[in-house]
Amino acid sequence: MSNVDSKFRHLLQPKSVAVIGASNSPEKAGYIITANLLNYKNGKIYPVNPKISEVLGLKVYPSILDIPEDIDLAVVTVAAQNVPEILSECARKNVKFAIVVAQGFSDAGKEGEALQKKIDEIIMQTGLRVIGPNSMGIINASNSLITTFVPIPNLKVGDIALIAQTGVFCGAGLIWLLSFNFFGLSKSIDLGNKCDVDDAELLEYFLEDPDTRFIFIHMEGVKDGRRFFDVARKVSRKKPIIVLKGGRTDEGARVVASHTGSLAGLENVYNAAFKQAGILRVNNLEELLNLIQALKFSPLPKGDNVAILTFSGAFAALLTDLCVENGLKLAKLSDETLSKIRNLSPPYVNISNPVDIWPAVMVKGAENVYPIAIDALLNDPNVDSIIVFQGFSRFFPEFWGLSPRIILKHLDRVVEKPLILSTIGEPLTVDELNKVTKLFNEKGVLFYQSIDAPIKVLNQLRQYKIYLDRVERKGV
Amino acid sequence: MSNVDSKFRHLLQPKSVAVIGASNSPEKAGYIITANLLNYKNGKIYPVNPKISEVLGLKVYPSILDIPEDIDLAVVTVAAQNVPEILSECARKNVKFAIVVAQGFSDAGKEGEALQKKIDEIIMQTGLRVIGPNSMGIINASNSLITTFVPIPNLKVGDIALIAQTGVFCGAGLIWLLSFNFFGLSKSIDLGNKCDVDDAELLEYFLEDPDTRFIFIHMEGVKDGRRFFDVARKVSRKKPIIVLKGGRTDEGARVVASHTGSLAGLENVYNAAFKQAGILRVNNLEELLNLIQALKFSPLPKGDNVAILTFSGAFAALLTDLCVENGLKLAKLSDETLSKIRNLSPPYVNISNPVDIWPAVMVKGAENVYPIAIDALLNDPNVDSIIVFQGFSRFFPEFWGLSPRIILKHLDRVVEKPLILSTIGEPLTVDELNKVTKLFNEKGVLFYQSIDAPIKVLNQLRQYKIYLDRVERKGV
Repeated sequence: MSNVDSKFRHLLQPKSVAVIGASNSPEKAGYIITANLLNYKNGKIYPVNPKISEVLGLKVYPSILDIPEDIDLAVVTVAAQNVPEILSECARKNVKFAIVVAQGFSDAGKEGEALQKKIDEIIMQTGLRVIGPNSMGIINASNSLITTFVPIPNLKVGDIALIAQTGVFCGAGLIWLLSFNFFGLSKSIDLGNKCDVDDAELLEYFLEDPDTRFIFIHMEGVKDGRRFFDVARKVSRKKPIIVLKGGRTDEGARVVASHTGSLAGLENVYNAAFKQAGILRVNNLEELLNLIQALKFSPLPKGDNVAILTFSGAFAALLTDLCVENGLKLAKLSDETLSKIRNLSPPYVNISNPVDIWPAVMVKGAENVYPIAIDALLNDPNVDSIIVFQGFSRFFPEFWGLSPRIILKHLDRVVEKPLILSTIGEPLTVDELNKVTKLFNEKGVLFYQSIDAPIKVLNQLRQYKIYLDRVERKGV
Repeated sequence: MSNVDSKFRHLLQPKSVAVIGASNSPEKAGYIITANLLNYKNGKIYPVNPKISEVLGLKVYPSILDIPEDIDLAVVTVAAQNVPEILSECARKNVKFAIVVAQGFSDAGKEGEALQKKIDEIIMQTGLRVIGPNSMGIINASNSLITTFVPIPNLKVGDIALIAQTGVFCGAGLIWLLSFNFFGLSKSIDLGNKCDVDDAELLEYFLEDPDTRFIFIHMEGVKDGRRFFDVARKVSRKKPIIVLKGGRTDEGARVVASHTGSLAGLENVYNAAFKQAGILRVNNLEELLNLIQALKFSPLPKGDNVAILTFSGAFAALLTDLCVENGLKLAKLSDETLSKIRNLSPPYVNISNPVDIWPAVMVKGAENVYPIAIDALLNDPNVDSIIVFQGFSRFFPEFWGLSPRIILKHLDRVVEKPLILSTIGEPLTVDELNKVTKLFNEKGVLFYQSIDAPIKVLNQLRQYKIYLDRVERKGV
């Protein structure tokens, strides 16, 4: 384990955790946090509250100073005005990390700012490390350390780390993401107002963390921009960084200021800096999910040239519009590809890109058309990536379901360029979607039930490839 | 019934339908079309094919001229080069409408254009009306007239008419749309290359059609723009028109030209004309679905001022960004509203718009907070529409599911301004989504599992209201 890793060992693999503000009322955060921590595998839990003596079968200590053992991590769930005193006690006890849950600091006007200043002083004077304030907590999926007060019924271990300025990614948002089979969590950390630990430090940690391959950051602003982007540049060439940023507009920036006290705004500056640092940007959770699937399973496109294969001329036009609007180009298919597909099609069909495959299927049958057409596109040096847009429904496995299954059946290798299957039809349940997606992902193929998603994702993969190529050319 | 209605009576309520090119091979279009037409309630079916004598228990006629009865509608599913001769026979038989399925006309180079010219001449000389060529057919949901070769297992009657230049809206796209309980069909018509019947004529028909309240058009281009927009202006003040247009970019326009022979392009011109005619625009099927829910159930917003109520400051910022990016504004809440919500919240919380309701819920419980806060916003004259962003999951009916259920329970009236509940959490199945959406829709409330959807929809509702107000002011 590296130095960086050991630095956060007490936070993410604590030998002992105190819950300051533990409670016996099942609806209170201090109860749910204690209950969640009972699932933790690698350390002991010490509830603290001067007013009660037992929580969930655990002995409760009046103060953290009364605990007979060393404490690595304290989860502090007391009212804002009591936080400075509690943190001072934590420092005296030589606690390594404290997570401060309460709101009411730099997110709450002048009084709040004064309170946060007191925390800053304690940190400076004692070396206590703090997550928050205004943090919902942290999750380490690999050892079931959950300091939050939201149950995550579908928690599954994976290679994606989340850093956020909102508890949504330790709660509702995380549950949504985890519903999809390729989305597994390494760690999730709500940084809240970031009075101490910040994105840059965590990025450095996740660069070294063997459990993490992809890093998502929900960000409202960074305090030390130069340092953040320096670190991000170092990290993004090894592990993709995806950012969702609030406060893109002036009005949004004002909301951010009142929410976590961060300075947002300067959208153009952020945009340029993100690009320079190889950071990929999404605007909502759907885009995050779509991009994660792509980064996990697809090769990166070597150029901008897209081939489109579809059963609908109308959707070929819409897909072309989307390509151009996303900075991509229609590939000029090679003569070999054109003649292979022409041989499958009735003579009146003018074969070019986008390829309308419907007439060929009508004449020769899907089984005799798709394998040849897709193989031709995969082998065409003029084609950097391929989008196949198809009808797909569990109602008609023999009809519309046919072409996706044929594609799967005849694909005898993991693809070496992006191949995206995009479908329309009766919507699948999440379970069905997970099953289908997995089959395609195993061959490097992406699967979406959307017309926009594949093109947005292709553009992002392409941007990332351009960034990596630039980094490599510069020999950094 | 008006004149306009009677004009299309022979197409949509035919007393007799001939299938020219009927087949006995179950995988052929000529078989599936005949099979689909057996469900038709209000007329007789006459298969035509010189080579066979029976299809699905029906007598087959060698030629349409051999049928002893009058024929209102002929579905022509023969190869392109045979179409002119068949249409001439239809004209001789005094058939009123013919649907031409084959591709290979203006969509297929010079030879195809010559062939389409022959059809044009027949139409001019005989008065035969033609849908297509290159049309997948039509569906009249109210009498189960389905001339297409795709089974629609979930067909349900409703008030939405589709006009398209692609069969997707008689097939895969339609199945997807019909999966949502508020989406029911009046008629769907694939116009294909539009050599005769066009959007404008159908718009006039749907204006009078008592089964149709909303009109969706998938369009690649219009031939007589002035006439189309004149008609659209007349229709859109009575029934909303929604357009999805292919060929927004030059490259997309080129694809359109090769696909249906329409002239697309001139994006700016189209954009201005759509706006002038009160036409609402969507870019994909999800946006169509979201807008249909809104137009069906929500009142229109009287102004741009949006109130946001959420459990997450981070998502409040993202929603604010989306509002501004969609031309909307954050409402300045009235003093009365502010003081009502302040009374619910801990003193450190700075109440403004967006309203962070989480601290109040933590202190007083959702049951005591949501009804008062939402009622205050509904009664606030400064607020034109309301977005409530919430966690929601069937896993935790008592926790995150609480606030949506409380909102429902305490809403004692159908809302008089747009109120949109937008949620995040573990994804619902379509059945669950339909159930939940219906409960909210009954009170005029919209329900989406998305952060972008509500804002896009609000913007569109607002644009439509501005258009209707302008029309009314002008007294037209």
